[in-house]
Amino acid sequence: MNKIEPRTLKGFRDFLPAQMRKRQYVINTLKDVFESYGFEQLETPALEYEEILSGKYGEEGDKLMYRFKDNGDRFVALRYDQTVPLARVAAQYLNELPLPFKRYQISNVWRGENTQAGRFREFTQCDIDTIGSASLLTDAQTIACVIEGLKKLGFEKFKVIINDRKIFSDLAAKFNLDSDLPKIIRAIDKIKKIGAEKVLDELINSGIKSDLANYIMQTIKAQKPTADLTKIFKYLEGLGISDENYEFAPFLARGLDYYTSTIFEVEIEGYDVGSVAGGGRYDELIGMFSNQSIPAVGAAFGFDRVIEAMETLNLFPDLTKVPNVRVLVCVFNEELLTKSIELLNYIRKTGLNAELYDNPADKLEKQIKYADKKGIMYAAIIGPDELNTNTVTIKNLRIKDQQTISWEDMLKVI
Amino acid sequence: MNKIEPRTLKGFRDFLPAQMRKRQYVINTLKDVFESYGFEQLETPALEYEEILSGKYGEEGDKLMYRFKDNGDRFVALRYDQTVPLARVAAQYLNELPLPFKRYQISNVWRGENTQAGRFREFTQCDIDTIGSASLLTDAQTIACVIEGLKKLGFEKFKVIINDRKIFSDLAAKFNLDSDLPKIIRAIDKIKKIGAEKVLDELINSGIKSDLANYIMQTIKAQKPTADLTKIFKYLEGLGISDENYEFAPFLARGLDYYTSTIFEVEIEGYDVGSVAGGGRYDELIGMFSNQSIPAVGAAFGFDRVIEAMETLNLFPDLTKVPNVRVLVCVFNEELLTKSIELLNYIRKTGLNAELYDNPADKLEKQIKYADKKGIMYAAIIGPDELNTNTVTIKNLRIKDQQTISWEDMLKVI
Repeated sequence: MNKIEPRTLKGFRDFLPAQMRKRQYVINTLKDVFESYGFEQLETPALEYEEILSGKYGEEGDKLMYRFKDNGDRFVALRYDQTVPLARVAAQYLNELPLPFKRYQISNVWRGENTQAGRFREFTQCDIDTIGSASLLTDAQTIACVIEGLKKLGFEKFKVIINDRKIFSDLAAKFNLDSDLPKIIRAIDKIKKIGAEKVLDELINSGIKSDLANYIMQTIKAQKPTADLTKIFKYLEGLGISDENYEFAPFLARGLDYYTSTIFEVEIEGYDVGSVAGGGRYDELIGMFSNQSIPAVGAAFGFDRVIEAMETLNLFPDLTKVPNVRVLVCVFNEELLTKSIELLNYIRKTGLNAELYDNPADKLEKQIKYADKKGIMYAAIIGPDELNTNTVTIKNLRIKDQQTISWEDMLKVI
Repeated sequence: MNKIEPRTLKGFRDFLPAQMRKRQYVINTLKDVFESYGFEQLETPALEYEEILSGKYGEEGDKLMYRFKDNGDRFVALRYDQTVPLARVAAQYLNELPLPFKRYQISNVWRGENTQAGRFREFTQCDIDTIGSASLLTDAQTIACVIEGLKKLGFEKFKVIINDRKIFSDLAAKFNLDSDLPKIIRAIDKIKKIGAEKVLDELINSGIKSDLANYIMQTIKAQKPTADLTKIFKYLEGLGISDENYEFAPFLARGLDYYTSTIFEVEIEGYDVGSVAGGGRYDELIGMFSNQSIPAVGAAFGFDRVIEAMETLNLFPDLTKVPNVRVLVCVFNEELLTKSIELLNYIRKTGLNAELYDNPADKLEKQIKYADKKGIMYAAIIGPDELNTNTVTIKNLRIKDQQTISWEDMLKVI
């Protein structure tokens, strides 16, 4: 038989247990914060009708989307983010849901990104969204929840930069540039990457007259927070959020097409690969699926970036120190297996997690190496001597110490 | 703008929060059991090179697999189960992994099933597998873990039926029917659905002589547990598993092609839609991706069936009684918002989860209905009277009771 080369697709990853422990730690921490704010979990399908997703993310999105014809000749596409599916859900189950509907979703999305830019084609998003509230209190609570999530993960020096897209749409309206608005936003969105001068060039190249483009850039620069933003800042203060953790940023634009007013992004000191979280208000999106327009605000954590930032800043606790299994019960040989199982049951009865080594034919040395590799703290061995004296040899694999004691005394040790 | 009909693809589902609570309950329960047995979490990509998956699940599998050409013209396929990706992982990272490698994986798989049969095209699998142990102790521990999982979920009357596929392969070898073995297994696999007589017909129709087909059926019927099974049963007894929970079943065949010896399936009294879990030993699969053959045993829980069985048998605790949010802080009006936020912070400081209602413009009645719909137990209100007397009105939404008391006394109530 020909061997098939074991490999993964470019931009797709396996997560082995050590990495999964970190991912689970982040997921559990964020889930707790989300739930404490009243967000409840939702799950939507990985595949949707293509028409549900296409056209919602701009040109770029349509290009990067995974789409195909299924076995039943339906045009389908893989989830590209969690917001558009949420908008569909909100429209589809409007009468069943409590309103405002506050949901979180943690699942994978797929984008055919250029992997050379350090991007992945399958990655996890953690989103919180509130559907059905036009109140700016919702914008503030969303931002507060993001800030609390970051704090719970251990981040200290970070800022949520906040803007109001109405600044751009008002400007565009003023100069009859409404149809150019997506272009303008996309140009301004690049300011961190390419600088103000090149953004100006791009505006001019896109057909906006030089004087006007200049005026737009100057106006944005001199912009003060809108009345809505001022109110959001006041709410944030009320919610006990330190003003060290947020800031008005008039050039913040955000890439996605669907935002309508408040937008925000997280900047972390000491990690400048990119934003670890962002979001905003999108009051028109759900209307695409519904006969009524429904206001909405949301935020998404870029899961991989959160993990990368935490690794960079050394924020993970030592996750090998709390392995799920406390003791590996070794198996000296097939004959002594029954006694080892007896010991296993004896330990498990106390509520401690104990694992029985799987292969009686393997040497003790191999069994202990296995425990060590998995981060298990103790190895318990019953050989012929221990059998005769009704004892057990217990090895502490951290401090490389061992003692032969009664089963009862062993419980005091482990 | 044309409204897009909000809808999901046939066989795909949204899980709203009430359903998600049940799913999370089952996932958390099983995870705890898996981890207590030393299984660690793994995640693999949703998309794989098609050649990794195709040909591993038999004809049926190749037909039902979601496959397409991606934007880079690669032939790719969506995960069809979690076992073949695990086999790839085992081959790909063999030197990095502790051996035996005991992993669990809980993720979705995709199959273009006929949805009329009550099957889904996207569904969750919960798998445990042990790679690299040929010992029958591993077969026994896998079965024991499945049984403990079912017990922890609340199932009482159930049986794991167990067989050894070598019974079929030995029979096939004896009569030079090796190439017919997959066919024979597929026919016998239908015995519960169509009965022994029709299985016999199918064997004959597939080209096996009537006498021989009859002899095969008689031989299987008279079969006693193989020496390996007898040993597994002995191990199960040692592990403290009651023999009420397992049984030899010579006609058990299992559908998937890759099993080599031990196979098993769960039967639950009072739920006969189908098996909620099953598995077996597959010693040849990993060899397809590796230069060496590596033994393996695993089990998979059919997540939806587990939930359906638990609903049928009424095994879920009341999950609305422990909502994540204990108190909804209502907002009487915009003017009193600051005071409400103060109360929110006051409650949160004690460690209790409190949610602030999002829209100050909504009537109190609507806010309280919202809390009730979400299963939140208490609603706290500060109106003008409460403001003046520095009190709070706390409503118990379960027993429809309310009292106006000091903030401090409120903490004793909630």
